[in-house]
Amino acid sequence: MAELVTNPTPEQEMLNWGRLLLDGIPYADLVAARDRSGDVSWFDHWMATADRYEQLADAALLAGHRRTAAELLLTGSLAAQYGQFLWFDERRQRGQERKAELYRRAAPLLDPPAERFDLPIDDTSIPGYIRVPRGAESPQPCVVLLGGLESTKEESFRFEELLLERGMAIATFDGPGQGEMFPETPLRGDYERYTSKVVDALVADPRIDSTRIAVLGRSLGGYYALRSASLDPRFVACVSWGGFVDMDGWDTETPMTKASWQYVSAMKTMDEAREFVCKNLDSRPVLHQLKVPTYVLHGSLDEIPDSEIDVLVEHAVNAQLEIDIEPEGDHCCHNLGPEPRLRMADWLADRLGTTC
Amino acid sequence: MAELVTNPTPEQEMLNWGRLLLDGIPYADLVAARDRSGDVSWFDHWMATADRYEQLADAALLAGHRRTAAELLLTGSLAAQYGQFLWFDERRQRGQERKAELYRRAAPLLDPPAERFDLPIDDTSIPGYIRVPRGAESPQPCVVLLGGLESTKEESFRFEELLLERGMAIATFDGPGQGEMFPETPLRGDYERYTSKVVDALVADPRIDSTRIAVLGRSLGGYYALRSASLDPRFVACVSWGGFVDMDGWDTETPMTKASWQYVSAMKTMDEAREFVCKNLDSRPVLHQLKVPTYVLHGSLDEIPDSEIDVLVEHAVNAQLEIDIEPEGDHCCHNLGPEPRLRMADWLADRLGTTC
Repeated sequence: MAELVTNPTPEQEMLNWGRLLLDGIPYADLVAARDRSGDVSWFDHWMATADRYEQLADAALLAGHRRTAAELLLTGSLAAQYGQFLWFDERRQRGQERKAELYRRAAPLLDPPAERFDLPIDDTSIPGYIRVPRGAESPQPCVVLLGGLESTKEESFRFEELLLERGMAIATFDGPGQGEMFPETPLRGDYERYTSKVVDALVADPRIDSTRIAVLGRSLGGYYALRSASLDPRFVACVSWGGFVDMDGWDTETPMTKASWQYVSAMKTMDEAREFVCKNLDSRPVLHQLKVPTYVLHGSLDEIPDSEIDVLVEHAVNAQLEIDIEPEGDHCCHNLGPEPRLRMADWLADRLGTTC
Repeated sequence: MAELVTNPTPEQEMLNWGRLLLDGIPYADLVAARDRSGDVSWFDHWMATADRYEQLADAALLAGHRRTAAELLLTGSLAAQYGQFLWFDERRQRGQERKAELYRRAAPLLDPPAERFDLPIDDTSIPGYIRVPRGAESPQPCVVLLGGLESTKEESFRFEELLLERGMAIATFDGPGQGEMFPETPLRGDYERYTSKVVDALVADPRIDSTRIAVLGRSLGGYYALRSASLDPRFVACVSWGGFVDMDGWDTETPMTKASWQYVSAMKTMDEAREFVCKNLDSRPVLHQLKVPTYVLHGSLDEIPDSEIDVLVEHAVNAQLEIDIEPEGDHCCHNLGPEPRLRMADWLADRLGTTC
């Protein structure tokens, strides 16, 4: 039933409808984008969609409908995200900025709100958000959510809801190569430094239980999650959702994935990008330091091969690994519906001792 | 962009993906149903899907994951609903029973729970559920939700969430011709008697503010909502979501819609069904009694023609009508994404005086 498309066009790669729908893009918008007039580009179509959502949100705010405004601004933010996805020219940055702007407007209207933080690091800062379940009296456990190669802190809303309703706070941020951080700070090998800065802020927050902080990352974020949990002992649990541990599979990646690597690493040529990425993204040397319960969700139809799981098992010799391989799952198992996401949320709830 | 399909096959009619997705069927399940093996019927496929969700839910319950179990049982219930939709033989009843059974298991696990009621009427009873927002101290406003020609009390969950998070309680039930009531009580002309029995129970419930009760119905339920609000002065607001006021358009309805009418009215022949339905479903004589704010959402691509709105305006001369016609909307505007649903939820919140 599930198909592995070989040599997909950018739009085919883009159109992982399972991903877009589960993250919150309405089906009606996907159909409209697919069936758009031939003289409107994918980018222009989605940016206009984002504008329309913002106008509807403004009208909702005027009418006092904050909850609806939040929903519409979130959807507009996602529209801008998926508009820029296919491009590696100035449109990319425009789309990213629009996404961040619309989410930032939604943030205070969300329930619970997403509270903005900007944490100083080196000569720049880490932008992010924290959301804490309402009505909680004692300090709450927290899950730090990591974006990936082209996903950012604005795209995890639906998954955040699963964690929040199970009694966990969440923190999201953009690290090197991601979203608002990218212009000043392209991809680096030490993403875990940024994760740890966020943990510094969380342990200083009286609403958060510093003994119950977990990390979850999706796609490249799964790589970062494994690395962050290996190198920061304050994490008590880790989830790698469609992640990996090294870039030995570079050659089998799709052209668009490779173009994304070149873009986020700000390398002039693809050869330089390849060398930089393969050298700087390799967690094998640190995985023996991973000592916490770690859940790994992987789909066998992913362009990331099953063999990456073998490499993880080989090196993470001190971790309590739970490996969950879905034979029919694509990248991050986006084609399998909400059930694997519920599984990850429950696994985290069990590890962090919340009831649900 | 939107297309009006003429003479659709049953499966084409069925596959209003906008409806199914917005009501909670995962996209992955729709794709799997579409791409199922040729030797598995639509019915058998979805009933197996329902079984799979129940098994996953049982496993979740064993692990203490009540919230996930609720979600999985709900999804299984919807799978059974959409499995039976295409059939008018014994499968229909099997699917309906399975849907009701799975929802009934989900009900106490929902947040807030769906509390079952069975209200005596004549020599039978009206089965339904009430959900009241958590943590509310004073009596809450309530919206009574009415199903339609083949939709029942189990299918409004996603829409209920919109109302609950805006501070409104909800009540759902099966009336004549619907779900659990159908075997004993086929379609009748006095659905409003059943609605009023539910209102009797609501006004006796100390958690409900008897001065703030509204009614919303979808499709045929929109017809029932207009009629119920005309004949029961305890309703203070009304929403007709893709409804109508008479059956003068019988001839232009699709074959499957006509077959549905014959089934729910338990008539032996289509001629009898036509006569019974056209005679018993006509609210023109009572619409002058509609005196409350009434919101009407209609899509011009619906098989229910725009002219039904003209008939409503002509007869509901004492109501405060807000007519919202979407030129590109299909039946119930299911093809337009979540935005029209947010609009209806906010309209009700404004009428019932809740903040959101």
